[in-house]
Amino acid sequence: MTRVRMDLFLSLDGYAATAEPTPESPMGEDWERLTAAYAATRTFRKIVFGETDGSGTTGIDERYAAAFFEGVGSEIMGAAMFGLHSFPDDPDWKGWWGDEPPFHTPVYVLTHGAPRPSLPMDGGTTFHFRSAAIEEVLAEATKAAGDRDVRIGGGIRTAREFLLAGLVDHVHLMIAPIVLGRGTVLWDGLGGLERTHAVTTEVAESGTIHVNFTR
Amino acid sequence: MTRVRMDLFLSLDGYAATAEPTPESPMGEDWERLTAAYAATRTFRKIVFGETDGSGTTGIDERYAAAFFEGVGSEIMGAAMFGLHSFPDDPDWKGWWGDEPPFHTPVYVLTHGAPRPSLPMDGGTTFHFRSAAIEEVLAEATKAAGDRDVRIGGGIRTAREFLLAGLVDHVHLMIAPIVLGRGTVLWDGLGGLERTHAVTTEVAESGTIHVNFTR
Repeated sequence: MTRVRMDLFLSLDGYAATAEPTPESPMGEDWERLTAAYAATRTFRKIVFGETDGSGTTGIDERYAAAFFEGVGSEIMGAAMFGLHSFPDDPDWKGWWGDEPPFHTPVYVLTHGAPRPSLPMDGGTTFHFRSAAIEEVLAEATKAAGDRDVRIGGGIRTAREFLLAGLVDHVHLMIAPIVLGRGTVLWDGLGGLERTHAVTTEVAESGTIHVNFTR
Repeated sequence: MTRVRMDLFLSLDGYAATAEPTPESPMGEDWERLTAAYAATRTFRKIVFGETDGSGTTGIDERYAAAFFEGVGSEIMGAAMFGLHSFPDDPDWKGWWGDEPPFHTPVYVLTHGAPRPSLPMDGGTTFHFRSAAIEEVLAEATKAAGDRDVRIGGGIRTAREFLLAGLVDHVHLMIAPIVLGRGTVLWDGLGGLERTHAVTTEVAESGTIHVNFTR
């Protein structure tokens, strides 16, 4: 059965970040600090840097990193995460991920901008641009996923939209043991999430706190 | 060497609570939910309910509960925690803890109210009322503690005052895996705490996340 899933990076003080790069700051210092433990994993080093020598951490962080894309049949992301806010006037913009993005599935990009044709990429990723309500886009993504899962890729504003609408079955939080003091708040309006979703907590070797909410 | 310590109960979304009971709600639902794992420990059941049959949890939560009062030579608390806001006009008010409070040390109560005589209680606790600056009260409490520690008991506003002034050497957070959605925010103004204090994280059998900041 298709589940709707997301993975989010969070600081102890509840500030979330997802990959919303800008030309000025490709990733940003806060993003790097929040994702440092993930970026150190064997899976990340393999996917992003193409390292096949087995370098990278292999503990609890790696177990979660390996699960990120496992069993995912389609993805939904916001316009900012795809880069439409950074390059609004470039009709040829194809995202931040090069010719072969790491999704290997249909990816639905939420946008209120002008219609764009779908973008087939190498390796099975196709970007589709949709301005419909999130429920409608989710229905399309669910159909495309078959019996696999739909992943809400981010950014944090998109993630919050789906969470507040009660559309998410599984939330995986990676809480870095730092106090960012700035960013986008995850929790506003989500009080009582533990009443609809069972919670588990776990600490990785890196000190990262993994929290899972599962409906 | 005397350290300044505190233990705080927190929700995942960063709302803190410390014992600030009111006549209407002796503890409050949120407080009970935040402290449920602590209240289940063998130490708490012994101290509060006088149970000496060894009932209560004995895992990681218990290890921290047993350490709460260990090595503490004096305590500082806010007026609200002592109850001065709830009973401002009762000169005979002696706190919420009965004839023999669990502190067994001098306890300095911060107040802007009228001067009150010190209150010696059974078991070695003496309440002193002070309207001086927190640095001054801390100096007095440190002297009284000898080579033992000073504990900032709460409530959360008092805890934040000491934290923001950079006066705390060790903060122990017990984060309950719940999203309260209301309360007093701990983190405002504390961004970068991990730069002055080393952080460790640990999850207890109850799912409670223990975070320690140590200077």
